[in-house]
Amino acid sequence: MFADEYDVIVVGGGHAGAEAAAAAANMGSRTLLVTMNLQNIGQMSCNPAMGGIAKGQIVREIDALGGYSGIVTDKSAIQFKMLNKSKGPAMWSPRAQNDRMRFAEEWRLALENTPKVDFYQEMVSGLLVENGKVAGVKTSLGIEIKSKAVILTNGTFLNGLIHIGDRQLGGGRAGEKASTGITEQLVELGFDSGRMKTGTPPRVDGRSLDYSVMIPQPGDEIPEKFSYLDTAALSVQRDCHMTHTSALVHDVLREGFDRSPMFNGRIKSIGPRYCPSIEDKINRFADKDSHQLFVEPEGWKTVEVYVNGFSTSLPEDVQFKALRSVKGFEKVKFFRPGYAIEYDYFPPTQLKHTLETKLVENLYFAGQINGTTGYEEAASQGLMAGINAHQKIQGLDPFILQRDEAYIGVLIDDLITKGTEEPYRMFTSRAEYRTLLRQDNADLRLTPKSFAIGLAKEERLRKMEDKERKSKAFVKFFKDTSVLPSDINPILEGLNSSLVKQSDKMFKVFSRPKVSMDHMLQLESVSGFVKDNNLGREVLEQAEIQVKYAGYIEKEKNNADKLQRLENVKIPDDFDYSKLKSLSFEAREKLASIRPVTIAQAARVSGVNPSDISVLLVFLGR
Amino acid sequence: MFADEYDVIVVGGGHAGAEAAAAAANMGSRTLLVTMNLQNIGQMSCNPAMGGIAKGQIVREIDALGGYSGIVTDKSAIQFKMLNKSKGPAMWSPRAQNDRMRFAEEWRLALENTPKVDFYQEMVSGLLVENGKVAGVKTSLGIEIKSKAVILTNGTFLNGLIHIGDRQLGGGRAGEKASTGITEQLVELGFDSGRMKTGTPPRVDGRSLDYSVMIPQPGDEIPEKFSYLDTAALSVQRDCHMTHTSALVHDVLREGFDRSPMFNGRIKSIGPRYCPSIEDKINRFADKDSHQLFVEPEGWKTVEVYVNGFSTSLPEDVQFKALRSVKGFEKVKFFRPGYAIEYDYFPPTQLKHTLETKLVENLYFAGQINGTTGYEEAASQGLMAGINAHQKIQGLDPFILQRDEAYIGVLIDDLITKGTEEPYRMFTSRAEYRTLLRQDNADLRLTPKSFAIGLAKEERLRKMEDKERKSKAFVKFFKDTSVLPSDINPILEGLNSSLVKQSDKMFKVFSRPKVSMDHMLQLESVSGFVKDNNLGREVLEQAEIQVKYAGYIEKEKNNADKLQRLENVKIPDDFDYSKLKSLSFEAREKLASIRPVTIAQAARVSGVNPSDISVLLVFLGR
Repeated sequence: MFADEYDVIVVGGGHAGAEAAAAAANMGSRTLLVTMNLQNIGQMSCNPAMGGIAKGQIVREIDALGGYSGIVTDKSAIQFKMLNKSKGPAMWSPRAQNDRMRFAEEWRLALENTPKVDFYQEMVSGLLVENGKVAGVKTSLGIEIKSKAVILTNGTFLNGLIHIGDRQLGGGRAGEKASTGITEQLVELGFDSGRMKTGTPPRVDGRSLDYSVMIPQPGDEIPEKFSYLDTAALSVQRDCHMTHTSALVHDVLREGFDRSPMFNGRIKSIGPRYCPSIEDKINRFADKDSHQLFVEPEGWKTVEVYVNGFSTSLPEDVQFKALRSVKGFEKVKFFRPGYAIEYDYFPPTQLKHTLETKLVENLYFAGQINGTTGYEEAASQGLMAGINAHQKIQGLDPFILQRDEAYIGVLIDDLITKGTEEPYRMFTSRAEYRTLLRQDNADLRLTPKSFAIGLAKEERLRKMEDKERKSKAFVKFFKDTSVLPSDINPILEGLNSSLVKQSDKMFKVFSRPKVSMDHMLQLESVSGFVKDNNLGREVLEQAEIQVKYAGYIEKEKNNADKLQRLENVKIPDDFDYSKLKSLSFEAREKLASIRPVTIAQAARVSGVNPSDISVLLVFLGR
Repeated sequence: MFADEYDVIVVGGGHAGAEAAAAAANMGSRTLLVTMNLQNIGQMSCNPAMGGIAKGQIVREIDALGGYSGIVTDKSAIQFKMLNKSKGPAMWSPRAQNDRMRFAEEWRLALENTPKVDFYQEMVSGLLVENGKVAGVKTSLGIEIKSKAVILTNGTFLNGLIHIGDRQLGGGRAGEKASTGITEQLVELGFDSGRMKTGTPPRVDGRSLDYSVMIPQPGDEIPEKFSYLDTAALSVQRDCHMTHTSALVHDVLREGFDRSPMFNGRIKSIGPRYCPSIEDKINRFADKDSHQLFVEPEGWKTVEVYVNGFSTSLPEDVQFKALRSVKGFEKVKFFRPGYAIEYDYFPPTQLKHTLETKLVENLYFAGQINGTTGYEEAASQGLMAGINAHQKIQGLDPFILQRDEAYIGVLIDDLITKGTEEPYRMFTSRAEYRTLLRQDNADLRLTPKSFAIGLAKEERLRKMEDKERKSKAFVKFFKDTSVLPSDINPILEGLNSSLVKQSDKMFKVFSRPKVSMDHMLQLESVSGFVKDNNLGREVLEQAEIQVKYAGYIEKEKNNADKLQRLENVKIPDDFDYSKLKSLSFEAREKLASIRPVTIAQAARVSGVNPSDISVLLVFLGR
């Protein structure tokens, strides 16, 4: 039936699988996406939103690289917010609420419009492996499909087990079958596997809520968007709402604790620390008698509502009684209860930087199978696995992003170097160079790299170059042009900023904390320059950041350059740590297991000390 | 969790379940729709089309009664055709191709906009029954939900078993779980159950087809629509295409016959006779070396394509090889193979005319669970079950449509009187009064009845009354108005129809077979009447039918009236057939089992002869 060999087979059609298929195909690989239900491509299994702190930056990076998540998000968004706008630009994080059905449909159509992506609906139950190299997949109907590379993106489906109170049922998501066979085979092949847990809140009927007692959470007045391409920004948006739990709600929830699979030992695996269940929050923060709940619409038209912050696996009657005690939820009707789900993952230290497994050649893992949580984390891994699968089978260089180049670089380096024992989520604090890794410059950082390997299209590169050229010219304008006290002082006076006594470079005045681009635009020469050069919002924002954060950015670049020197010291693949008795025992063991590629990566392995690094440097002749 | 009792619980969210929930709620019942996956409400499990011969009439009847199928179909249609337009109006049958995703979405939104419909996602695994009366449902999580009535619409999910070649897997549809527990409980309660089978063709990638060698099948030039309300007709349509199997294709398919579950005895249950699998067609019509295939797009934008006519459960490699031998399919890529599915049904002779079960009070069955096939058949049963569940629990009269009133009446009467041993599908030939049961007059036939019980809204009644009044006036105009030879003869001459010698009533000339409304409109007095009275397309069509088929319609009305007299002879509920030794043994047995409500129904029971009816009439004092 599949007489021809595919270049790449992607197993799973969620965020990771969809990006993986799109990337591999757009690079030129003949790609097959196999999934258990083609109608469920691009499902948002949990909340109907993309982005957020650090995650929004990842979506922007995916877009800059030519992935689809940003475009799909823009096309299906119902609300947009730039979070942390009051903080420095490293913290600005775009976030969108989405129409769940539209999001899935846009993903499916995006993939259908990718010529080299084929589709097949079936459960993959095993891999074809020949001489330590993957050669395709086997389906539950016994079909064998051959390929040069395979990317596994199984999400929560591998031996998925759903928990609600003291009941369990097999399933990959509510109402969907679990997937079996793959874990067992991988373990046989020598992989370590583990179990993780995640959860989701109840979905409720918006018609049963009293929004008048909740706090509206509207989108931005002037909403931005994710993609650097010409997607449309929203002209109409839907509000979310906020409400709170109370001591009473917590008391009701506690009644169910003895039947909670989280507390009675039935769930042994670890859930996402920063996305805890409501019972976990009550337990861990016993002194708090209120938690925020965000009431998120599931789409433009549907009445279904997602209760963000109320993830739970308590018995459904307890969930219900507790939610009915929440302000505005007194008459709530459930569409379905919340639940927890346990699933198999594979500790990601078994992977290379390309997300290829160390054990089986041309086999890649992306998404929750690597112990991560989050749509954005999954999508970015899928993208990188898709790119690297293509590069590998074409005999081309691996495509690896460094920690100072992208959150995606931080994510993958963290995973494969440190592993993770709980669902890994991205934060700005995980990035040591976060002033460089901003949402505004992902295109400047990444589009040229992606264009060089043939993924980002010329249009994208031209747009980015145009933005870069214009913003550089604008910064140069501020550096070169002076402003008269008579022109600037009225503005400074209004800001309670000290006046200037003589003509000075605009750059210097603009660098003052209180002075913003809006103030500078009050100067005729500045607004004239903007008009003459036809500078758009993005260029103005970019120039403003380049002027006002010049010092920080410069400093981080220097730090990154220093580290880069260590990144350039490669450790040979077959390096024998056991002979280096001057290394600590722990370092020898960990390094032999992780097999870092560079000295810099070796330094990030937990248990490896600076003295161990010195030994390595001496030994490697530095 | 569900502290309050519902009036009606509907189990299943397909065509039957969706109409049942809408009808019960719109009648005023507090209704809960429980389904295994709320994202799959209103799924078209098989082909993406509604209507067709006899089925299109049913959709019009559903609409006339205030059901949603017609509206949902209109909103999601991508092509519309009035079939059999060259035949008499009893045969005119509307049919639409639909966008599968839009159809499901419109159903879900329609239900969400029905205030008294609540939703819950869970598998119902059993019924609550108290003293022979249903009292609610139990879910697989052990939740009990109380209600006064329950409507089961389980489709192919009850112990669903999917067959492809020699492989089987449990499932209610491809990629979805089967439902368990209900059959077992019903059998324990004394119900007879059986197994039926249905099948579906492969879904393929439209990008891999060569449409240039197929025959385009466009929609009507001036497309009509289903709903009598103001839905929009299509202004743009998508083409289908036709191609054919060949002797070669059949040879390839035959290679797989030994692995066919249809032929090797693995599938024992009977499939839909008039929707046979391709292997069945080859087998039964061995002399034909070509069958038509209709290539139907799955929506406005998707590349997925449905291969109508190629339903099969042969091994997927055989399906693939055979389809690749079809003209235009030489490079076809599969989205998923075709398959057969076996599922539980309950012989419908266990039901009353209201679709309530005879064994358990307030329990209703609708759709495939009753042994029918087809979206339209399912939807109409759901609607009738929804209405009757409401009527019953409110202590109101049952709502039963007679055989001369609606295809829906024929359908239900056939099912409960004759039962069915193979999936039952509607045909015009099943209706003895099909000249009365036309698609153009479903509103005239049914809207007043539905308005009387409170389902059809006033707007619908007003529209129907306006149409009726105007078309009657128009017919009267033809009867009252004479036409001069000098006016009509030029028209008759052009039609090669004999000329009139003197002034005659328009009705008489219009009655001639060759003369159509378009010809009559060439007369100034006719077009003037149309303009003055502002008569629309529907009124013109109605008047034309009333004039041209007056004789046929009159004759059938008389026949129906005669039968109605027998319908009026009621047989008491507790009538003891065993004592009537003058009845044939077979009649006694069958009548005691079916328990017909009237003499007319008794006459339709298979094995009951006219002599048996005479005996009954005598005994009942007629």
